[in-house]
Amino acid sequence: MEAKEILKVHVAKLTALTDEQFDYFFSHFKKQRFEKGQAIITEGDTVDCEYFVISGCLKSFFINDDLKMYILQFAMPTWWASDFNALYNHTKATINLDCITDAEVLCITNGDREKLCHELHNVEHFFRWRTNKGYVAAQKRLLSFMNNDAKHRYEELLKLYPELYNMVPKSLIAAYLGVSRETLSRLYHP
Amino acid sequence: MEAKEILKVHVAKLTALTDEQFDYFFSHFKKQRFEKGQAIITEGDTVDCEYFVISGCLKSFFINDDLKMYILQFAMPTWWASDFNALYNHTKATINLDCITDAEVLCITNGDREKLCHELHNVEHFFRWRTNKGYVAAQKRLLSFMNNDAKHRYEELLKLYPELYNMVPKSLIAAYLGVSRETLSRLYHP
Repeated sequence: MEAKEILKVHVAKLTALTDEQFDYFFSHFKKQRFEKGQAIITEGDTVDCEYFVISGCLKSFFINDDLKMYILQFAMPTWWASDFNALYNHTKATINLDCITDAEVLCITNGDREKLCHELHNVEHFFRWRTNKGYVAAQKRLLSFMNNDAKHRYEELLKLYPELYNMVPKSLIAAYLGVSRETLSRLYHP
Repeated sequence: MEAKEILKVHVAKLTALTDEQFDYFFSHFKKQRFEKGQAIITEGDTVDCEYFVISGCLKSFFINDDLKMYILQFAMPTWWASDFNALYNHTKATINLDCITDAEVLCITNGDREKLCHELHNVEHFFRWRTNKGYVAAQKRLLSFMNNDAKHRYEELLKLYPELYNMVPKSLIAAYLGVSRETLSRLYHP
């Protein structure tokens, strides 16, 4: 499936746009290709875009003062990624976004999203429900972190991203779960 | 300020409704009073409402298998609270919501929110930005949990809820931070 079709199927799950409306919506996206390891957003950057993943896998992460990496989100095809705090509040990036594999994305600017939401009520509906779902996912992840239950987090990860284990080094999976490689092995082979 | 005016000022920060539109919007909310300690949502409940706090303070929380309480959110005046996962996905509540103090809230059902969003584009805009802000707040809280930095979480809490320290027992503040009472005392008197 080509990029336009992938986005169209994704949007249709949450809202009904006519073909003309979708064509107009799609005309505001820019296709970009990145190579494995390439940075899309780096801490301190000005952030003006959000990214819809067509192929490949991205990760958003931050590095703490002890140089330990924490993965906030993996973004697989049909997931959205950015530093949303920086994007929405017009502040500098506090997280990083880069490519675990070669990746193809569609990017849209803050300004174009807001313009489209203003022009097309159905687009505003789409983005509201996209964020509702993101909000609920972030709260679930927070609850499992508070409860500090690595086994539960591991099972949730498998459910959320069943394809992940073939695409991503185990060290990154450990960084997502917030556990050491050794703990991950025990979860893996209980 | 009465409840209607508090909601009006809150909505006006994100969207412009005419007086007639706001009156119609407001007519879908029901005012409710709760007493200190009273439960609004209990694990296992069907959840059909979200709550806008007019006065008092609520907490959303869950109790793990070891009977330890984790506070997800405090909800002070002009904050929204519910089990949004259950509300949006029509599943049973997995968290609890109750009253730290006597409280007055405005509640709106899932169905009425969706109806209003459909009827009034500006209302859809309001709820989209309300959730955008909630999403970013949840991500920030997740990052500070991943980083396991209680001191940072404590400072963020002070920034988010400066009035909290006069309203809420220290044991609940510890449950929000995910630390023991002893650790909280050290943060308090470093």
